[in-house]
Amino acid sequence: MITPSHLAFVPFVSVHNMMKLVHHIGLERVLTEMAAEIEADFRRWPDFDKTPRIAAHSDVGVIELMPTSDGETYGFKYVNGHPGNMKRGLQTVTAFGLLADVATGYPVLLSEMTILTALRTAATSAMAAKFLAPPGAATMALIGNGAQAEFQALGFKAICGVTEVRLYDIDAAATAKCADNLAGRGLKVVTCTTAEDAILGAQIITTVTADKQYATILTDNMVGSGVHINGVGGDCPGKTELHRDILLRSTIFVEYPPQTRIEGEIQQLSPEHPVTELWQVIMGTAPGRSTVQEVTLFDSVGFAIEDFAALRYVRSKLAETGLFTQLDMIADPDDPRDLFGMLMRAI
Amino acid sequence: MITPSHLAFVPFVSVHNMMKLVHHIGLERVLTEMAAEIEADFRRWPDFDKTPRIAAHSDVGVIELMPTSDGETYGFKYVNGHPGNMKRGLQTVTAFGLLADVATGYPVLLSEMTILTALRTAATSAMAAKFLAPPGAATMALIGNGAQAEFQALGFKAICGVTEVRLYDIDAAATAKCADNLAGRGLKVVTCTTAEDAILGAQIITTVTADKQYATILTDNMVGSGVHINGVGGDCPGKTELHRDILLRSTIFVEYPPQTRIEGEIQQLSPEHPVTELWQVIMGTAPGRSTVQEVTLFDSVGFAIEDFAALRYVRSKLAETGLFTQLDMIADPDDPRDLFGMLMRAI
Repeated sequence: MITPSHLAFVPFVSVHNMMKLVHHIGLERVLTEMAAEIEADFRRWPDFDKTPRIAAHSDVGVIELMPTSDGETYGFKYVNGHPGNMKRGLQTVTAFGLLADVATGYPVLLSEMTILTALRTAATSAMAAKFLAPPGAATMALIGNGAQAEFQALGFKAICGVTEVRLYDIDAAATAKCADNLAGRGLKVVTCTTAEDAILGAQIITTVTADKQYATILTDNMVGSGVHINGVGGDCPGKTELHRDILLRSTIFVEYPPQTRIEGEIQQLSPEHPVTELWQVIMGTAPGRSTVQEVTLFDSVGFAIEDFAALRYVRSKLAETGLFTQLDMIADPDDPRDLFGMLMRAI
Repeated sequence: MITPSHLAFVPFVSVHNMMKLVHHIGLERVLTEMAAEIEADFRRWPDFDKTPRIAAHSDVGVIELMPTSDGETYGFKYVNGHPGNMKRGLQTVTAFGLLADVATGYPVLLSEMTILTALRTAATSAMAAKFLAPPGAATMALIGNGAQAEFQALGFKAICGVTEVRLYDIDAAATAKCADNLAGRGLKVVTCTTAEDAILGAQIITTVTADKQYATILTDNMVGSGVHINGVGGDCPGKTELHRDILLRSTIFVEYPPQTRIEGEIQQLSPEHPVTELWQVIMGTAPGRSTVQEVTLFDSVGFAIEDFAALRYVRSKLAETGLFTQLDMIADPDDPRDLFGMLMRAI
């Protein structure tokens, strides 16, 4: 057996190594540093190839590919969304991702992204709130206490200075799990039995529920003036969380309009309804929040550039930590024209 | 450290294991069985989700994602095409692919596909020729003697009964390499110094060159009546191999017209130029070759369903051979809502 060349190997970050990496760096520091990377990539938004994700829908869920490129590095994420999985003991969302060198097309990183997606989603939400939430916002309602909830809570703590989270889920066991996990992490945690209770005194409302349906997690009368809504769970066609009336009186910020029009809360509105692209707010070329009374909504569906930034962040940590293995994934014969010879000599 | 559940693991076929798998089964048997799988999937063509591949082009190459689904299994391939790679000692084409369960979105196979793409391309070419080449065709010109050439030669031997291959490449070293590799494999191998010489007496002409440009590997006067042309190398925008006049007097067969119009030889023709979908010939709902004098052209660019069939073939061989490893790629907490808890307990 001939040993593969070093070109045949792709660094791979397993679930195990991703967890070790988070602990090595520290969760809140990871969230903060990743948010900075995402913000930096939003600041060079026009440099990226952008396309709405490529979705394969079925009756029970969706499988998506989310590619992007900055001309130097190419990245994509594979991600599914299957709301019925939980009842079968499976994750609603699982993911993995890849970076490749645009100059050669060779992969340079393969990584688990189930955990990384939860991290990057929380980092993006908190980064957006830094620009959109009312000044001094310290209390957040967290509606939907599933797999992503704790990441959101700690992202807002680390990046926005949130000190209190008010939890609500239609499943009280999910709320108990979330409160348990957040205990002792420097946040005041209040468990609530209704959404109305959860939003009491909250300047930020995060909705992160998983049902694949037109749901109404929030109705118009529940949203007071000056609130920032971080809408995370409405992220595919036929899946929304907010009553349409809330959208009509909110200033709406989105990642990539061609994707959000299909997948976000704004699928409930006409295709011409005005929205602001978040990257323009970050760049200072479009206004963010204009008044204290304004209701702002970040209609987040998740965009490929966030995954790209998260994968690059992970890649930047590999040399110093060694938390990866080498995967023999690329056939690389000594003579590149001699793939057949390599195969035949492998006997 | 908590051990991951079995759901966290994705069977992975490395380059090493793919080579062992091919030797375990035998190369010609692999090509023949894979062609049968591809043909079977062409027979249920309407059952598949089909989309032109999603391409990210740069000055030096292209990176593509090729997804498809039959409603039960989802598959995609990552593949690059970088003609300049060879000069840097790298493969022009590298690839890997994935299968997933549509019902849950969980991946069920990750595999190298550089070798597998060469196998499936040869299997598809030979399968198409079975339906399109003139009866009794036994001599094939093979123009372009790079990484895919030997696979094409042996595919046509195993599946179509070709007994003689006539090799030509602008690089004589590539022809020598190819002739060397094919020696002793039951084919009469003739090395030629011009394309004109290579096509002498050939009933089948396979073109599989790699330059990313509008090239003219064959001109009209070189193609005699009754020949079947297997055009493999013209497979992206701006990359063709055949003079337009050849196309105008050929009956043209394609995989998936929306993709081939962009990428194939027929990018040189008007978008209305009539073409026949190969799957309809296989099903008997469209004519294949009608006369002995007819020039037939399989304008092959490679389609996702071929990769899907190839991956399913590999997957079907894993239990009996054990030629895979388990990759810890999917985070799978005991309580699917408790991704955070899994992460925190991993310390």
